[in-house]
Amino acid sequence: MRFVTFKQGRQIFWGVLEEGGIYYSAKLMSVFPTLHSVIENYDSINFFQEINQYISRNEVEILAPFRPKKNIMCIGKNYREHALEMTGNDESQIPLDPVIFTKSPSAVIGPNDEIDAHEMETNQLDYEGELAVIIGKEGKNISRENAHDYIFGYTILNDLTARDLQKKHQQFFRGKSLDTFAPFGPAIVTKDQIRDDQNLNLKTYVNDELRQQSNTSHMIFSIGELIETLSDGMTLEPGDVIATGTPSGVGKGFNPPKFLQVNDRIRIEIENIGVLENTVS
Amino acid sequence: MRFVTFKQGRQIFWGVLEEGGIYYSAKLMSVFPTLHSVIENYDSINFFQEINQYISRNEVEILAPFRPKKNIMCIGKNYREHALEMTGNDESQIPLDPVIFTKSPSAVIGPNDEIDAHEMETNQLDYEGELAVIIGKEGKNISRENAHDYIFGYTILNDLTARDLQKKHQQFFRGKSLDTFAPFGPAIVTKDQIRDDQNLNLKTYVNDELRQQSNTSHMIFSIGELIETLSDGMTLEPGDVIATGTPSGVGKGFNPPKFLQVNDRIRIEIENIGVLENTVS
Repeated sequence: MRFVTFKQGRQIFWGVLEEGGIYYSAKLMSVFPTLHSVIENYDSINFFQEINQYISRNEVEILAPFRPKKNIMCIGKNYREHALEMTGNDESQIPLDPVIFTKSPSAVIGPNDEIDAHEMETNQLDYEGELAVIIGKEGKNISRENAHDYIFGYTILNDLTARDLQKKHQQFFRGKSLDTFAPFGPAIVTKDQIRDDQNLNLKTYVNDELRQQSNTSHMIFSIGELIETLSDGMTLEPGDVIATGTPSGVGKGFNPPKFLQVNDRIRIEIENIGVLENTVS
Repeated sequence: MRFVTFKQGRQIFWGVLEEGGIYYSAKLMSVFPTLHSVIENYDSINFFQEINQYISRNEVEILAPFRPKKNIMCIGKNYREHALEMTGNDESQIPLDPVIFTKSPSAVIGPNDEIDAHEMETNQLDYEGELAVIIGKEGKNISRENAHDYIFGYTILNDLTARDLQKKHQQFFRGKSLDTFAPFGPAIVTKDQIRDDQNLNLKTYVNDELRQQSNTSHMIFSIGELIETLSDGMTLEPGDVIATGTPSGVGKGFNPPKFLQVNDRIRIEIENIGVLENTVS
């Protein structure tokens, strides 16, 4: 299933996206008011029995799937070519262990929402197209072999970054967490829809220029390894979001850099997952 | 007021701690079930009219005040002597801008809860006694002069750290976020109780040995400056927690290092705020 959160008039619902429209249930909504609560209670919900309302896709506005209850966990330099473009081709900077930082949930926006250029805070606004993994089941000390049992599904994250703040503050949190820096969605695609999450094409366009083109097969640390590392001593919980890192082709990787400008439109496409598009305002 | 969350039998309540006992209201609880919701709705609650139940302090167990709805924002190297002890007395490593990382809310435990030694994950378990600021009002681009208008109150955080993981993963998140790594509390003391938050003595004992002894006047970046920086482009929200950094005297600062061992008891005292004590198990 492809779960979305949407707005019709002034009301917010979640539902299941199908060709042309969305199936939903006001009755289920009253018990599970957000997609986060759906994920937390997934096994106890009988979707096919309850969902009996339909609305056309073009009558609604798609929002971010949900607001996470903790920071989004992000992986730095998880594609070799990106690690090299960020470090002046310094092979010694390719990480031997995952680099993990976080992004505030207050930065989350939906598809079609505008990205604030934050011209008072940064001159180096950059994009990063990423596959995001949504955890579905509580777990700790999960082996890479069992990691997929704990995945609920997948979506897209644009890990927007103020490169100057990222550098100035040493730790990445502030440069990654300004308001609107986490476009997220549009749909959460359940794992049964994805045959191999390590073989998905990913493309990022800025306006009509193709900037990032890679495949999740090129991750340094696989999704299984990331879940193994993150859950080693730390409990993962339903609704946790893990952004798996970005491939090469970010603005800072060009010479001269191609940072984002007002009115730029960033479009991230991940095979079988969807398209996430936002404009800088 | 000094707000606490407590357990009586199998029920969890919040209340106001006074000499010898706690005043609370089951009626208020039904509307505002957590201290987080109290902080979010503080101005609309008439505590004196509603609170009419009393329980003796020794009939209850004090828990963590609340589970934050995003990661705890922590400041690294915010006391000069601590920055030096962590870097082999390298003056060039004293930060010019706040170093900001985060700690997962899944790591939060209460006073008296046990800290997991995580012997499978770390050989370098370390303590950090810190004053934590609780935000009470939503705000963005807050000046240091107005910062205190946005503070709800204060409590104590033990920013437990696996030094080996902190180093190995470059970004601090994982070394700071293992389960039980965020003892938090016991009370949230409202700001009207604190004359000057930049003049509070802080002491940390491990067993009966005094390890940290400083005063919040020695912060490199004041609480006003931290709120100014964090809110510059990022909205702060009620219930946000900012841990303001630790002074010198952490285990890693000694030669040889004094890392924590099973059965060690860590006691953090902050003047007018309280005492937070936990044992490693």
